Amino acid sequence: MAKKILIVGGVAGGASVAARLRRLDESAEIIMFEKGPHISFSNCSLPYYISGIIEDSESLVLSSPKTFKDRYNIEARVNNEVVEIKRDKKLIIVKDTTTDHTYEEHYDKLVLSPGSAPIRPNTIEGRNQLNVFTVRNVVDIQRLNAYVKENDLKDVAVIGGGFIGVEIAENLHLAGIHVSVIEFANQIMTPYDYDMAQILHKEMVDHGINLIVNDGLAKIGNNFIETQSGKQIDAQAVVLAIGVRPETKLAENAGLAIGETGAIKVDHNYLTSDTNIYAVGDAIEVYHRLLHKPTRLALAGPAQKQARAVADHICGIINRNLGVIGSSSIHLFDLNAAATGLNVRTAEDAGFSYDSVYIMPGDKVGLIPNSNVMHFKLVYETPTGKILGAQAIGKGNVDKRIDVIATMITLNGTLDDLKDLELTYSPMLGTAKDVVNHAALVALNQLNGKYREVKVAQVRELVENSAFIIDAREKNEYHAGHLKNAINIPLSEFRNRLDEIPKDKPVYVHCRSGQRSYNMVMALQNLGFTNVLNISGSYLGINLYEYFNDLVTGREKIVTEYNFK
Amino acid sequence: MAKKILIVGGVAGGASVAARLRRLDESAEIIMFEKGPHISFSNCSLPYYISGIIEDSESLVLSSPKTFKDRYNIEARVNNEVVEIKRDKKLIIVKDTTTDHTYEEHYDKLVLSPGSAPIRPNTIEGRNQLNVFTVRNVVDIQRLNAYVKENDLKDVAVIGGGFIGVEIAENLHLAGIHVSVIEFANQIMTPYDYDMAQILHKEMVDHGINLIVNDGLAKIGNNFIETQSGKQIDAQAVVLAIGVRPETKLAENAGLAIGETGAIKVDHNYLTSDTNIYAVGDAIEVYHRLLHKPTRLALAGPAQKQARAVADHICGIINRNLGVIGSSSIHLFDLNAAATGLNVRTAEDAGFSYDSVYIMPGDKVGLIPNSNVMHFKLVYETPTGKILGAQAIGKGNVDKRIDVIATMITLNGTLDDLKDLELTYSPMLGTAKDVVNHAALVALNQLNGKYREVKVAQVRELVENSAFIIDAREKNEYHAGHLKNAINIPLSEFRNRLDEIPKDKPVYVHCRSGQRSYNMVMALQNLGFTNVLNISGSYLGINLYEYFNDLVTGREKIVTEYNFK
Repeated sequence: MAKKILIVGGVAGGASVAARLRRLDESAEIIMFEKGPHISFSNCSLPYYISGIIEDSESLVLSSPKTFKDRYNIEARVNNEVVEIKRDKKLIIVKDTTTDHTYEEHYDKLVLSPGSAPIRPNTIEGRNQLNVFTVRNVVDIQRLNAYVKENDLKDVAVIGGGFIGVEIAENLHLAGIHVSVIEFANQIMTPYDYDMAQILHKEMVDHGINLIVNDGLAKIGNNFIETQSGKQIDAQAVVLAIGVRPETKLAENAGLAIGETGAIKVDHNYLTSDTNIYAVGDAIEVYHRLLHKPTRLALAGPAQKQARAVADHICGIINRNLGVIGSSSIHLFDLNAAATGLNVRTAEDAGFSYDSVYIMPGDKVGLIPNSNVMHFKLVYETPTGKILGAQAIGKGNVDKRIDVIATMITLNGTLDDLKDLELTYSPMLGTAKDVVNHAALVALNQLNGKYREVKVAQVRELVENSAFIIDAREKNEYHAGHLKNAINIPLSEFRNRLDEIPKDKPVYVHCRSGQRSYNMVMALQNLGFTNVLNISGSYLGINLYEYFNDLVTGREKIVTEYNFK
Repeated sequence: MAKKILIVGGVAGGASVAARLRRLDESAEIIMFEKGPHISFSNCSLPYYISGIIEDSESLVLSSPKTFKDRYNIEARVNNEVVEIKRDKKLIIVKDTTTDHTYEEHYDKLVLSPGSAPIRPNTIEGRNQLNVFTVRNVVDIQRLNAYVKENDLKDVAVIGGGFIGVEIAENLHLAGIHVSVIEFANQIMTPYDYDMAQILHKEMVDHGINLIVNDGLAKIGNNFIETQSGKQIDAQAVVLAIGVRPETKLAENAGLAIGETGAIKVDHNYLTSDTNIYAVGDAIEVYHRLLHKPTRLALAGPAQKQARAVADHICGIINRNLGVIGSSSIHLFDLNAAATGLNVRTAEDAGFSYDSVYIMPGDKVGLIPNSNVMHFKLVYETPTGKILGAQAIGKGNVDKRIDVIATMITLNGTLDDLKDLELTYSPMLGTAKDVVNHAALVALNQLNGKYREVKVAQVRELVENSAFIIDAREKNEYHAGHLKNAINIPLSEFRNRLDEIPKDKPVYVHCRSGQRSYNMVMALQNLGFTNVLNISGSYLGINLYEYFNDLVTGREKIVTEYNFK
C-alpha cells in the first residue's frame, strides 16, 4: 500500500521534503499543512520588499497549492494548523483556521518543519502596541510595509543587530526612513569578531543609521522608545529582531525529546525520539562538526539538506550526516560580508588552541578601477595549522573566499593546503595571489615563528603606554594622518636609520596594509633586532577598529550617539 | 660570505623571487636583469589599457628599479639582456642594450625567469609589416594603442582566440574599433568544452565581434587579411595572438635540459639540470597533478608560487610541490567565465573514465533583480565520483564556484563531499542550494543510475531522427519558441496524458533549465517507463548550443559570417 506522509510546515524545510519525496515515490500520499496562507516563500528575501528591491510582495511567494498539486501531485493545505500529535494512534489533529473546523489525519511518517518564531520580550512596557512588529513571513512584511508607508513614518527603531535586524534596518533606510538599531551586546552580527564587526558598524553609521550598541530596549511609546541606559529615541514603529526561538510546542506536547539547546533533538537521520516522526529546519538542533556538540543554526541551506536527507531516509536511501560548520553571508549597503566556521570568540569559548591573522589585500588587481580593499580574518588551530574559520568583509567578492574556506574546513584542510591552492585569476576578478593564499602565508609565518604580531585590539594600549611604534609608510602618507606617538621611518629609508631603532625594548611596526611592515620586520630580525613585532591589520585596520575614537590624528571623532566603550 | 643571486627576467616570476629572497636574507646580494625597460608590470592587465579601463599605461608598471633599491636593497638593471650563461665559471654575460656594452657577472645561484614570447608565424605573407603586432609587455601595448588611435583605424583583426586574443579583441571593441577574431580551431578558449565555449561565441557575436572559427590566417595586406578559406576581411592592423612559446634559448645554449613539452625541465624545487640554476614562470614545464605528466601553464598565480619556492629553497626552507591543476578566469563583455582542472575534452584525451553534468541554475535568488542564469559544467571520474574539473559562465559570480571546485580537486574531494558542502548564502549573493551543491546532486543521480541523460550536443541528431522529445514547459513557454519536433506535455499535465507517451521507444524530456524535466523523468520511471532520458542543459542549453543554427522555432538564424560546422 502507498505510504502516507504528512508534513507540518512549508518553506525551505517542508516543501523540499515533499518535492524530493515525490521524485522518489510516485505513489506516496503526501500532504503538507501550513498554518499561514503561503506554503512556500523566500524567507531570506522578505526584508528586500520594504526597500522595493523586490517590488511585488506576491513574488515572495514561490509556489502555490495549485502548483504543488499540478506539478508534484502533492496536497498543500494552507491555513491549516496542526494542533496536536497523537503518536500512539499515528495521527494528527488539524484545525482549519478559516473555519475553526478540527479534523484528524493519519500518517505513516510525519515530518515536522515548524520553523522558529521571533522572540518577543514579555515584560517591556508597550510591547503589545499596534506599532510593534516582528518579521517572520510574507504577511508580517506586508503589515510592516503598509504601516510604515501608509502612515508616512519618519523614524523606526529596530531592536537587535542580527541578520534580520540588520537587513530590515538597511531596507527601511533605503525606503527613506530614519532608522535606529539598538543592540544589547557590544557589536552586531555575532558570526564576526569585534574587529570585523566594527567595519559593519562603520558602514551602518556612515549611511546614516543611528546605531547604538551596549544598550537594550526598556520601553516602547507611541512615538519613541526608551533604552535601558535612559536614551529616548524617536520611533513611530518598532521592529523586534532580538532573535528566534525554535517552534517546539507541538513536539514537546507530543512528548518528543528536546535537546540541550532547547530545540527538537534528532538523530543522524533527523528522526526525533519517535521513529515515525522526523524534524528539520530551524526547530531542530544540529551537530557542530568543529565544536563537537549540538547547536542551533537557523539557515536555509542546512534546512534544505536536512529535508533531502529525510525524504531519502523515508525511501530507504542511506545518508551521511557531517554536522554543520555555520556558513553565512550578508549584503549591507556597499559591503558584502561572509563568515564560516569558528571566529576567535567561539574558538576561545570552546577552549581551542588557536591563533588568527587579519589581512587586507586588494580584491582585484590594484589598477583595475573597481578594485577595493578586502578585510579577511583567518582562524586556525595551533599547533596543527588546521583551518577553523574565516570572516571577510569588503565591496567585492568576499563570499568567494569564504566558500573556499568552508570547503577547506569540510575536507580538513590546513594552512599548507590553503597556501598551495591554485585558484582562478584574471585582473577584473581577482589577484594572482588570492586573498586566501595570502592569509595562509601570513599565518604560516606566524605558526612557524618566522615573525610575531600584535592584534589590532592591542594598539590602543601600545599607544597609551608610549610603546616604540614605527610607521613604515612614506612621509606624505604619514603626514596625512597617523597613529598618535608613531614614528615615521619609511621602508625606503630604514636601512640608513637603524640607529634610531632601539634594541632594548619591543619595536612595533605597521604600514598601510601590512606589506611594507612585514618586509621591515623580517629585515630588522635579520639585522639582529630580536624583539620586533608586526601590527596585524596595520594602519587601515587600526583606523577601522578605532573609527569612533581619537587614536589617529588628522580626523575628527565622528559619531557621538555611538556607545563605544 | 654573503650569497650572490642573479635573476634573469622580472614580472611575476623574477621580481617575486627577489623580494622573497630579501625577506629571508638581508645580506644576500641580489641583482635582477631585464632586457626591457620595466622590471615589474601587470602582464595580465595589459589589454585593459586599450579600452581605457586602465587609463595610464605607466600605471601598468608596478615597480621601478629605484623602489626595488630603496625598499628591498635589490639592484634591478633594466635594458640589460643576459646573452649567455657560462655554467663552468658560474657567470653570465650581460649586454647593456642602451650602450651595447657587454660585461660579466658572477653568481652563486642563478634564477631564470625569461617568460614566454608570442608565436609569430614565419611563412605568412605580410608578417613583417608595421601594422602587425604582438602583445607581451608595456611597450607592445603602448605601440599597438598608439598605432590604432593615431591612425584612427576602423578595423583590426585578432588572430587567435585564447586569453590574450579574446581580451585584446574585447578591449579594441570597447575602444570603438570593429574587430574580427580568427580562430583556427572550432572554438575559442580551450579551457572550455565546445558547449560552454559556444556561450562565449554568442557573447562575442552579440557584441558585434566578427568571429570566425575553423579558419586560419593566410595573408596580411595593408588594409585587409585573407584567411585560409579565402575570406578577405577588412583590417588595417593585425594582432597575432596565436599562442606563446617558452623562452628557452638562453637555457638551451647553456646546455640545460629541455623537457618533453619544449619548456625548461625543472625538479621538485624548480632546479634545472644544473644545481646552481633555477627556473620559474612561463619558460618551464610543470607537473599536472591530474594528468600525471608535464605540461605548460603560462599563468601568473603558479609563477608566483614557484618564485616563492625557489627563494625558500635557496635559503634552505623545504617546499612541497603538488603540481598544477590549471585554474583560470576571464571577463568577456557582460560575462565572467572560469574553469579548473580537466574538461571533457582533456579527460577524454587522457583516457579517463569520466562523466559530466551541465546545469544552469540561478546565481542568486530568482526574485532579486540582478539574478541571472549560471551555466555550470562539472566533470568527474567514474565510478569513483572524484571531481576532475568544472567550467562556469554567467553574468554573476562564476569564479566563486570554480574556486570551490579547485579546492575540492586539490583535497581529493568527491561528489558526496561537494553535495554536502555548507556554503555561504544570502539572497543578494547566492542561493540556499548553491550551484555546486546542485551540480553534485545531479551528478550523483547520474552516477548512481537514478536516471540517465543525453548531452546537449546530441539533441540535433535526436531532432533530425524524429526521436520522441517531450517539452515539459507550460504551453505559453512552448509557443514562444521550441525545439523542432518536440511535443509539449507540461509537467503540470503529464499525469493525465500518460497514454500519449510511448513505452516501446526512448523518451527524451527537457524543460527550460532542467528542473521540471528532472521531476518528470523520475515520475515516469516510477510509473514504469523504463527508457526515459533527461536532456542535459534543457531548452536554455540547446538554445545556446544551436544558437547559430535553426534547430529552434521562433527565431531567425542570426549570423552568416560565423563558420558553424
